Amino acid sequence: MDVNARTARWEDHVELPLAAASTLYLAAYAVHVLAPGLPEIWHDICLGTLYAAWAAFAVDYAVRWRFSGRGPGFVRSHWLDTLVLVLPLLRPLRIVKAYETMERRHGRPLLPLYARVVTYAGMATALLGFSGALAVYQQERYAPGASIRTFGDSLWWTCATLATVGYGDVVPVTTKGRVIAVGMMACGLALLGAVTGSFSSWLLQVFSRQGDERPPGSGNAPGA
Amino acid sequence: MDVNARTARWEDHVELPLAAASTLYLAAYAVHVLAPGLPEIWHDICLGTLYAAWAAFAVDYAVRWRFSGRGPGFVRSHWLDTLVLVLPLLRPLRIVKAYETMERRHGRPLLPLYARVVTYAGMATALLGFSGALAVYQQERYAPGASIRTFGDSLWWTCATLATVGYGDVVPVTTKGRVIAVGMMACGLALLGAVTGSFSSWLLQVFSRQGDERPPGSGNAPGA
Amino acid sequence: MDVNARTARWEDHVELPLAAASTLYLAAYAVHVLAPGLPEIWHDICLGTLYAAWAAFAVDYAVRWRFSGRGPGFVRSHWLDTLVLVLPLLRPLRIVKAYETMERRHGRPLLPLYARVVTYAGMATALLGFSGALAVYQQERYAPGASIRTFGDSLWWTCATLATVGYGDVVPVTTKGRVIAVGMMACGLALLGAVTGSFSSWLLQVFSRQGDERPPGSGNAPGA
Amino acid sequence: MDVNARTARWEDHVELPLAAASTLYLAAYAVHVLAPGLPEIWHDICLGTLYAAWAAFAVDYAVRWRFSGRGPGFVRSHWLDTLVLVLPLLRPLRIVKAYETMERRHGRPLLPLYARVVTYAGMATALLGFSGALAVYQQERYAPGASIRTFGDSLWWTCATLATVGYGDVVPVTTKGRVIAVGMMACGLALLGAVTGSFSSWLLQVFSRQGDERPPGSGNAPGA
Repeated sequence: MDVNARTARWEDHVELPLAAASTLYLAAYAVHVLAPGLPEIWHDICLGTLYAAWAAFAVDYAVRWRFSGRGPGFVRSHWLDTLVLVLPLLRPLRIVKAYETMERRHGRPLLPLYARVVTYAGMATALLGFSGALAVYQQERYAPGASIRTFGDSLWWTCATLATVGYGDVVPVTTKGRVIAVGMMACGLALLGAVTGSFSSWLLQVFSRQGDERPPGSGNAPGA
Repeated sequence: MDVNARTARWEDHVELPLAAASTLYLAAYAVHVLAPGLPEIWHDICLGTLYAAWAAFAVDYAVRWRFSGRGPGFVRSHWLDTLVLVLPLLRPLRIVKAYETMERRHGRPLLPLYARVVTYAGMATALLGFSGALAVYQQERYAPGASIRTFGDSLWWTCATLATVGYGDVVPVTTKGRVIAVGMMACGLALLGAVTGSFSSWLLQVFSRQGDERPPGSGNAPGA
Repeated sequence: MDVNARTARWEDHVELPLAAASTLYLAAYAVHVLAPGLPEIWHDICLGTLYAAWAAFAVDYAVRWRFSGRGPGFVRSHWLDTLVLVLPLLRPLRIVKAYETMERRHGRPLLPLYARVVTYAGMATALLGFSGALAVYQQERYAPGASIRTFGDSLWWTCATLATVGYGDVVPVTTKGRVIAVGMMACGLALLGAVTGSFSSWLLQVFSRQGDERPPGSGNAPGA
Repeated sequence: MDVNARTARWEDHVELPLAAASTLYLAAYAVHVLAPGLPEIWHDICLGTLYAAWAAFAVDYAVRWRFSGRGPGFVRSHWLDTLVLVLPLLRPLRIVKAYETMERRHGRPLLPLYARVVTYAGMATALLGFSGALAVYQQERYAPGASIRTFGDSLWWTCATLATVGYGDVVPVTTKGRVIAVGMMACGLALLGAVTGSFSSWLLQVFSRQGDERPPGSGNAPGA
């Protein structure tokens, strides 16, 4: 209990700073990739911000590991945090988490579960899609024979991938770009699953509510 | 209560006119895009119709906002109406809403929920797909290097996009065309979610009904 | 009651002949399309078979309409039969229906609902895919600039379409071919919905069974 | 009972050896395909391993058939085993089964059903994808006009297929390659179904749990 309380207090304190670090991370990365013509000093600042944000995540991870009083098991049970620590492109997910925490703290009447799932899935997809488009663009833009040559191309390709449409008019050709692309396909599958699953759960709820309005006796049937 | 009653009475009165405005909007837009060879006067009439339909929607929106007696919160809680007001391509959705109202008013025995969801999703997809195909065709037809050169190409591309198949033999190449395309991919995902969700809810219903018909004791078993 | 009984007796009698007519239809169509080098007489036989099968379906439709004692409402309430009558490519669906009837009549222990849905959806998809591949191949093979030039290409394109993968390496280019293709995309969406829906219903059943094995009190929670 | 006990004991004994045979099979196949420059003797060893693994599966199948004391019905009721015996590419599925058995035997607290389904589906997809990529690469690499020319291309194509994205920048062109590809599309559909179904079941669970925690009377309301 004491351990959990300490962890919870820590998380309360760092939630917003970490979300800010995520936002800074994304902004610095975007500037670094999208404005290659800036003076060298700006790129150094961007890279400094990237490393600082990474350090903030590492410190948070280390503190929570220590507070948990656990050995390597922590890495496994907090695999999402571990992934976010290791894979910089997943870092913007922190923003979604912070948004959820804020909504909860403000005591706003929560949206129904389905709407929240779709909202969070949409936000996560948008953020991951944006950082993925940046990363693919960075890998591809100077590659010989590349078809993704502007950031617009990269965004267009990202949308076609996340919707699992996949036109194939522009595609990554470098190995690194393709590895990132595979990660984005996985996001697309998850998004599809979230949309479909939310819809189907919502339908079942609506239906079982209709069932409740009927005379009892036929009441419990629909959702059993 | 009084506010709601006034709003409901207003909505009863404008439902059909607004659906008619939607239909006119779509027809005028189609004529404007598909018959570039018409005399100038006809195009002026079409544009006039487009603006008049837009004005009708704006008036409806303003009246309901005032009736609601609320401030900017109205914009957020009626985000779908706001979107339809701002994005002309979504306007045909009104027709689906009017169709639903008519079905309800005529007191027809309603279809089961799943069939209704699939029907409405199908109608909405068809209407949005048609207006989207018009808009993409308008953007692309004279663009250099475009692969969508006839309205048939545009319809074909629309179907491949909405089904998330995405062959990529014809694709939009202009920025505006691609922005519209991203919106249509979102429609495609939603359609997929609606079809899948309806199917899965329907299966669960059938299943729980079968469970009810069996002798008690084996009630919950069928999933074996 | 009497009407229903007469209709049921009729359906019992024609089920197998109609399934045979469907099979003959598909076989004659396949021979007609895939063996253009056969002597003229064989093609005449094939066409004769096609028309005879169509006549069988028309007679069945007319008889059931008359037995129903209803006016034009019959067309609407039996829309699937109407579609099968009008659209020859849907005719093989009859085979699936006959298969289901046979399984039922033999009193075999039925598969669980999910397995049946997946089986029937798979059979329907295979039959529709085969007849669709034939039809697209017939439209495309001599078209200028066509990329579907062998029946193998057509089958490959069909599979990529039904799975909503859509590579786009071979695609129909004629208007008729594309219209058929749109119908096949709809089949693909429905197949996806059937697979996903069955899976999700099955999971929920498994889960609610597990819930039953738990101590009562937590029993009814999962599927509510 | 006795039959089942004997079969269960046999399965206990061969579970791990068969998983090892599967792993060896996959490894030998990978070496054979990916290192064409190895001395002839190594390829002979690989082929020997492949046949030995196949023989192990055949022996297991035969023993269980005999233990079951059944005739040809065994082939039908164990259709998955039969498929794995006949289609070498499905053999790695054994590893997933062995993993599940190990988890169960170690008495570890099981993951919730949804997580397990996603885990097993992910493992099965990864293993089948890898062996499918190997097989397609083997068919395509020396084919005239092939676009899959490196194993990296094949992996990239596999990921795009399993996610049903299907860019079409690289596609199989040989008949054998396309047949394997169709099998992989089916895997992709199944994966999509598993992800979506798990998500939707999980949402429904979360939802019904929330319903239980609220005061009675508002119990069924949340879907509002």
